[in-house]
Amino acid sequence: MIKIDWKKQGGLLPAIAQDVETKEVLMLAYVNKDALRLSFETGYAHYYSRSRDQLWKKGETSGHLQKIVSVFLDCDGDTILYLVNQTGAACHTGERTCFFTRLEDVGESDT
Amino acid sequence: MIKIDWKKQGGLLPAIAQDVETKEVLMLAYVNKDALRLSFETGYAHYYSRSRDQLWKKGETSGHLQKIVSVFLDCDGDTILYLVNQTGAACHTGERTCFFTRLEDVGESDT
Repeated sequence: MIKIDWKKQGGLLPAIAQDVETKEVLMLAYVNKDALRLSFETGYAHYYSRSRDQLWKKGETSGHLQKIVSVFLDCDGDTILYLVNQTGAACHTGERTCFFTRLEDVGESDT
Repeated sequence: MIKIDWKKQGGLLPAIAQDVETKEVLMLAYVNKDALRLSFETGYAHYYSRSRDQLWKKGETSGHLQKIVSVFLDCDGDTILYLVNQTGAACHTGERTCFFTRLEDVGESDT
């Protein structure tokens, strides 16, 4: 059985949120053990903010909650996939998904 | 304009591969500048292996190539989304996607 590998990356694993109905990839954020536990316990997606160094419930301020439908782990146990029902926009910009910028080539967007 | 933030995470950004037809999330791996450049130049998904410390072309050995259809960047410039045509299985286990393990609760899979 595949187990979550919390030892990688300092206990923070990337978590992809995908809209269960439209199948859009909405965002990627990070989870620690507590964030994942809270997602299961509450039924709403929680993450861990690396910049603010704290747990956050997605949509707590904006109301743009992500209701958890199911949670998957990848084959090497170091990435989480949340399938969610997204209320409103997933992105803080107001866009439906955070992935609204199409790259035409690397040079254009390279810094 | 949103630019790629290569300064984060030591120049390695997570890259999600999504099947452009089925919309399945296939896998997550990492890219550096060279991997992303090669994806654009060759039209096939390239990644950077953290464990082997080298660039790799997905499917180079297995033949399970990922033909790039489009590439998106997220709103804060630190996650890549490859939309691909997947040949064969994305996962090295032979499963179509790496996310074939459903978590029922955290305790079950916690280590």
